[in-house]
Amino acid sequence: MTVRYLALSGGVGGAKLAFGLTHAVPAGELAVVVNTGDDFEHFGLHVSPDLDTLLYTLAGINNPTTGWGRDAETWSFMRALEEVGAATWFRLGDKDLALNVLRTHALRSGTTLSEFMADMAKRWGVASHIIPMSDEAVRTVIETELGPLDFQDYFVRRQCEPVAQSIQFRGASDAAPVAELQEIMTAGSLAAVIICPSNPYLSIDPILSVPGIRDALGWCGAPVVAVSPVVSGDSLKGPTAKIMNELGIVCSATAIAQHYHGLIDGLLIDTDDASLEADISDFGIAVKLSDIVMRSAEDRCTLAKTVVQFAGELGCGVK
Amino acid sequence: MTVRYLALSGGVGGAKLAFGLTHAVPAGELAVVVNTGDDFEHFGLHVSPDLDTLLYTLAGINNPTTGWGRDAETWSFMRALEEVGAATWFRLGDKDLALNVLRTHALRSGTTLSEFMADMAKRWGVASHIIPMSDEAVRTVIETELGPLDFQDYFVRRQCEPVAQSIQFRGASDAAPVAELQEIMTAGSLAAVIICPSNPYLSIDPILSVPGIRDALGWCGAPVVAVSPVVSGDSLKGPTAKIMNELGIVCSATAIAQHYHGLIDGLLIDTDDASLEADISDFGIAVKLSDIVMRSAEDRCTLAKTVVQFAGELGCGVK
Repeated sequence: MTVRYLALSGGVGGAKLAFGLTHAVPAGELAVVVNTGDDFEHFGLHVSPDLDTLLYTLAGINNPTTGWGRDAETWSFMRALEEVGAATWFRLGDKDLALNVLRTHALRSGTTLSEFMADMAKRWGVASHIIPMSDEAVRTVIETELGPLDFQDYFVRRQCEPVAQSIQFRGASDAAPVAELQEIMTAGSLAAVIICPSNPYLSIDPILSVPGIRDALGWCGAPVVAVSPVVSGDSLKGPTAKIMNELGIVCSATAIAQHYHGLIDGLLIDTDDASLEADISDFGIAVKLSDIVMRSAEDRCTLAKTVVQFAGELGCGVK
Repeated sequence: MTVRYLALSGGVGGAKLAFGLTHAVPAGELAVVVNTGDDFEHFGLHVSPDLDTLLYTLAGINNPTTGWGRDAETWSFMRALEEVGAATWFRLGDKDLALNVLRTHALRSGTTLSEFMADMAKRWGVASHIIPMSDEAVRTVIETELGPLDFQDYFVRRQCEPVAQSIQFRGASDAAPVAELQEIMTAGSLAAVIICPSNPYLSIDPILSVPGIRDALGWCGAPVVAVSPVVSGDSLKGPTAKIMNELGIVCSATAIAQHYHGLIDGLLIDTDDASLEADISDFGIAVKLSDIVMRSAEDRCTLAKTVVQFAGELGCGVK
């Protein structure tokens, strides 16, 4: 089945919309390119938080409460780590460990990250394509008042408390998009590119930092639409607003439009932000208003349908 | 505290006596050198079944039913492996994974196996010394009717079903005893060397295959006593009897005496085998009769005290 919809996603927030998209379009026509800037080595295991969140969510085996990790998870591994005084700031559930152990073993045996994820998606019956942005290591590093911090150190261990000054994607200049993604972007078959309401700075920018991806999205011939991760001047989840403030950016849907300016054709913003429509239109970006807060599975499907429809309208007009 | 008692042990059977020994002598005076011929890589993890059985048993956190693995273990990791069709013939519990993940990470980071086990023993409050026979890889391979089989493939996956023809300890000739063990064996402080009722061919011979260990035990000045793993012509547990038969050896305490001839000064056999006393004595091996089947924690302590006493008697006489 030809891929016609390409979504860009970070972890939990992006996975919600990706889940909706699997119900809004034929699942096999959807590919999700996922941020791997958050990947890290923990106890020698290769951990890929965003990829796994996508996999678990699309397989329907995710933890519905946290949004990350497995359903009906147990935590015996963590308790045993505690017994010996090992680091427990990063929580790896017992079921989740299976994916991490298998991945680490596969990578050490010469399998690529994209091959491994495709195999796991198949085994868990996921019809959509879950594609890491690159098989090469790109690592998000937050320059803070305390010095440079690895992403998980900043995000999980320190709960985003240090003031961010800038964000780097180490290794990006030497990385290449995964071949499957390259093919999807250049095949001329895409009907829409959808930027999920993930953190633009921490989750989407790493994807766009991989040489070739941003350009290919511009040339792919399909409308590029984003869903704002900001409503009424605050982020839907996570530290987006805090980071924007620290980087000297006023947190608003307009700032999101400005950030994606030159890449996106349309921005879906919340009806509460209707007053920003004119400002965003001034960037040459089409605006659609909708309720963009996803509280339920139904919300995810509804929002996904709205995005697809919005892209369809732009596909007939803008391009 | 100076080590005065050195025990040689495989897994479950040996650990029972080692547990008893920690109650029969000051725990800090006991060192247990443990078979690592069963170690293997599974999903990229360095698994050391016998070492872990000793550690868990002496820490009092072992599974009292199986004798191996952790207390109150959970199996979510294994269930997740099943979900994706990964191999499940080797059971790694969720708590047990912590030790295996930490060990694999430590070894890859340049820590030796003996350093890692000493650190874990300390963290779990074990006063006795648990020492791998070597920090180098020695791997038990069973030559069978089906060809050579790695130990865990033979022992766990195939449940010892293939007929054994011979046993190899690959890597042994290039291995050296762990430095701490070397010091214990040559310090002249030992009061007794105790060979636990482990499988002589699969659990004790790998230890003795490491160049220098057998000789050092002969020269250490302490009596060497073994507890027979065989009672009334059958093994107390595991495949000892089956393997002896396949190797053309009649399974009896006499065969155990013959096997250890030249190494041991005394053999503790079951009162049911009293009729074999004369045959064993003919090898120049002192015999002591006792109930050697350990059913309860009390049995382990009683047997341990008997062994220590036996060695004490031999220490005054034989040497």
